[in-house]
Amino acid sequence: MRDALIAAAFELFLERGFEQTTIDDIVALAGVGRRSFFRYFPSKEDVVFPDHERCLAEMTAFLQTGGDEEPVARVCDAARLVMRMYADNPSFSVQRYRLTKSVPGLRNHELSVVWRYERTLADYLRRRFAGWSEGTLRADVIAASVVAAHNHALRSWLRSGGQGDVAARMDPVLDYVQSAWGPAAEAQGAGGREAEDVVVLVAKRRTPMWRVVRGIETALEES
Amino acid sequence: MRDALIAAAFELFLERGFEQTTIDDIVALAGVGRRSFFRYFPSKEDVVFPDHERCLAEMTAFLQTGGDEEPVARVCDAARLVMRMYADNPSFSVQRYRLTKSVPGLRNHELSVVWRYERTLADYLRRRFAGWSEGTLRADVIAASVVAAHNHALRSWLRSGGQGDVAARMDPVLDYVQSAWGPAAEAQGAGGREAEDVVVLVAKRRTPMWRVVRGIETALEES
Repeated sequence: MRDALIAAAFELFLERGFEQTTIDDIVALAGVGRRSFFRYFPSKEDVVFPDHERCLAEMTAFLQTGGDEEPVARVCDAARLVMRMYADNPSFSVQRYRLTKSVPGLRNHELSVVWRYERTLADYLRRRFAGWSEGTLRADVIAASVVAAHNHALRSWLRSGGQGDVAARMDPVLDYVQSAWGPAAEAQGAGGREAEDVVVLVAKRRTPMWRVVRGIETALEES
Repeated sequence: MRDALIAAAFELFLERGFEQTTIDDIVALAGVGRRSFFRYFPSKEDVVFPDHERCLAEMTAFLQTGGDEEPVARVCDAARLVMRMYADNPSFSVQRYRLTKSVPGLRNHELSVVWRYERTLADYLRRRFAGWSEGTLRADVIAASVVAAHNHALRSWLRSGGQGDVAARMDPVLDYVQSAWGPAAEAQGAGGREAEDVVVLVAKRRTPMWRVVRGIETALEES
């Protein structure tokens, strides 16, 4: 019945527009009573994002296990759960993306969902960074970076009409965040490198930090 | 009249609650007609955030000038415009923070405003990074980092009841973002340091990047 309500809702949203569709229209088309709708969805907005609650619960559970993984890598893997939810049903995801872009109320609803994902990631990182100086700041900034990078890749895939493999777009952007905030050498896979090798970098004192980091990355790639 | 409407609205929101207050209640207390309300505010939510439109316009204008400044420093300065809007009226800002935390509809409205600030910063960075490889990704991630760091400091000040100087909380968190993404040495002011000094850092190849960065920062601080 839940699936029938989602199908009926989308049929009407695409035909008449989101604002012009009432919950009564949806239940009439699905052939169920009004109370059934509210058993599954708190509001008309929620029927547009039917899987986020499940995905949030999955992310929370995921972050309660696997305590040994490097924290930034772990939140990147947690973000991939959201990507997979979209990838499981490309045509539905693309339809929803187009609908959400054109309806401010849905856009705001989506922002509130994204914010909950970000808080879930940040809360995990705050636990992992407990006791670090600047630990909570670091947690908040990394969570925001991961969400921004994830959404950057996801949106580009949605704009393309859901063509190709979203994971292939996701991996480089999450690697980018990991190389900025996490243990870059680990993330790069270190194929065949000796753990005891050393990198010596000489830089002028006023060299911008990003140039230093890029210099180290280049040195690691070349060897 | 605009100020009278804001004052009346807050008096009622704090007394009865946001949801329990109607626009009719607000205009009655302010002694004006219903149409006057809508001349200033599109919705009841907007009266809670009366200065964001002005601040967004100010930020947009600010980012259209000063093209020579280092891009990350520029968006950090743009974020400080938002901080100043809060700092201009600490008691109002703290009242609003408490109200927003307790009303989901206001929380969502605020998220949509934060998203517009973030897009404004990201659009500026995308222009500055045009032609860079990964330029749009870098723009999106840095904008998200700056907003997260700004909100981290702003919320801690609001939680404290608006005590002390918010700028003193803001500077270190924005420096933190700049040292991760922008030219750190410039940002640190380089008091008395010679530009031609060199830093030599020796690290094991598999050292996490954050440890390398921290090592360089420590070396810079010690000298």
